[in-house]
Amino acid sequence: MTVPFGERVRAAIDTRSRLCVGIDPHASLLAEWGLDTSAAGVREFGLRVVDAAADTVGVVKPQVSFFEPYGSQGYAALEDVIRAARDAGLLVIADAKRGDIGSTMAAYAAAWLTPGSPLEADAMTANPFLGTGALDGAFTLAEAHGKGVFVLAATSNPDAATSQRATVDGSRTVSAQIIREVSERNARTTTEGEWASLGFVIGATVDWEDAGLTGFAPPAPILGPGFGFQGADPSDLDERFGEAAPLVLAAESRSILSAGPEGVREAIIRRAAAYGDVHV
Amino acid sequence: MTVPFGERVRAAIDTRSRLCVGIDPHASLLAEWGLDTSAAGVREFGLRVVDAAADTVGVVKPQVSFFEPYGSQGYAALEDVIRAARDAGLLVIADAKRGDIGSTMAAYAAAWLTPGSPLEADAMTANPFLGTGALDGAFTLAEAHGKGVFVLAATSNPDAATSQRATVDGSRTVSAQIIREVSERNARTTTEGEWASLGFVIGATVDWEDAGLTGFAPPAPILGPGFGFQGADPSDLDERFGEAAPLVLAAESRSILSAGPEGVREAIIRRAAAYGDVHV
Repeated sequence: MTVPFGERVRAAIDTRSRLCVGIDPHASLLAEWGLDTSAAGVREFGLRVVDAAADTVGVVKPQVSFFEPYGSQGYAALEDVIRAARDAGLLVIADAKRGDIGSTMAAYAAAWLTPGSPLEADAMTANPFLGTGALDGAFTLAEAHGKGVFVLAATSNPDAATSQRATVDGSRTVSAQIIREVSERNARTTTEGEWASLGFVIGATVDWEDAGLTGFAPPAPILGPGFGFQGADPSDLDERFGEAAPLVLAAESRSILSAGPEGVREAIIRRAAAYGDVHV
Repeated sequence: MTVPFGERVRAAIDTRSRLCVGIDPHASLLAEWGLDTSAAGVREFGLRVVDAAADTVGVVKPQVSFFEPYGSQGYAALEDVIRAARDAGLLVIADAKRGDIGSTMAAYAAAWLTPGSPLEADAMTANPFLGTGALDGAFTLAEAHGKGVFVLAATSNPDAATSQRATVDGSRTVSAQIIREVSERNARTTTEGEWASLGFVIGATVDWEDAGLTGFAPPAPILGPGFGFQGADPSDLDERFGEAAPLVLAAESRSILSAGPEGVREAIIRRAAAYGDVHV
């Protein structure tokens, strides 16, 4: 029996770390690492981060966009990076932010969440601009195969206010409504006491009151970018996420990756240790 | 000097057709066409549609999601299909619906809009859930290289209401606000009398009043899915899009593709003819 993704995240946080290591082979980082701006470069970068992460953390998050400029060769590199990470026992969240409707969304989900697919990961990020119902194909596939989906709910960039803090029915924000709709599904599909497998992306620097966010149930993992380089500190976790703090996978990229190939392992250990006292 | 994308769309509508042929190698269509559910199958499907479209229409729209399940091989097939289409003089809109922020969004844009990139198309679709400002990297690249971006503005699926018809500042819908923000940028970057290159995706079956939509300026191309199989008829164009009707690229997929490999060319000719009297 496959362990549901939500429970696998809980175990990863319990036994390894709350830190989720971003694999973001941005062109400027490739240069810093002495690697070519090429498919071979992003492959090498990704494999080295996986190797450094495997001993310490439980979750990595490759940023799909940084592989895409190299086309099919970039995707071949991403396949290798994802496979290496999963072979090393890491949970892989493909940060793909896919969003579409019906069979089109189902095809994206098939790419990332079907066992045996070349790009098979453990979870993907998804964009709910076409509605949470439009993501049904991804949700269904995730539930069938013990995979996860992180739905973009509240991001911290100021530009996001237009779409995310607009109000639904004159009261709730779009962000709050998305969390409500996905939580209703989680309530129907999750065993009492377990973490649900449809989680949320909520930026670490988001002001919850401003964004109209409140707690939610059942518990579901939160992918929280914005720690480290982007300004949120591990010690802020409880203050920023309140009662939801135990659910947070703290995503860090640049704070780790800028340490370079020689320093990345130590940077991961150091950043993971900073979350050491917030284990659930 | 590169002709801006908006003007290239105008010319395509003027000289060829308003019909935009979708290249959607859905698994069920591959079966109908007698092709394998594989990267080779989607390549063959795409190349045949391109061949059939090249004599009649000016624009094709490959749906990226249907290539992604085959991983790097699927993307290699997509590269071949896009290249064949562009070599045949077709404008290619990559229906990728990418949406992210900052350098992450810029990397997606680099993949689809940079001259010489393996996946180089003429335009891409983009998702504004993180804000239209977050799409700046794509807009800037498009403007620099005569490429286009179609921003999701109003889709016709009922689920979309949560995000798209929520209200901004207690008045405008999110859809209307997105069109306003992008049009402000178009006004700054477009030569008087020309079509702008940052267009919109507006479903053909969207009720404009319901969605809070009004006209916009400067003129910019509208990608309108929902014609044909999904219920909108070419004769409805003026009623549905009003003064914006001349700007519409009418996207059809299933109505054409379900004709099978032997009938697809005739289906394109027949569907294109149905728009014959609405040329600008």
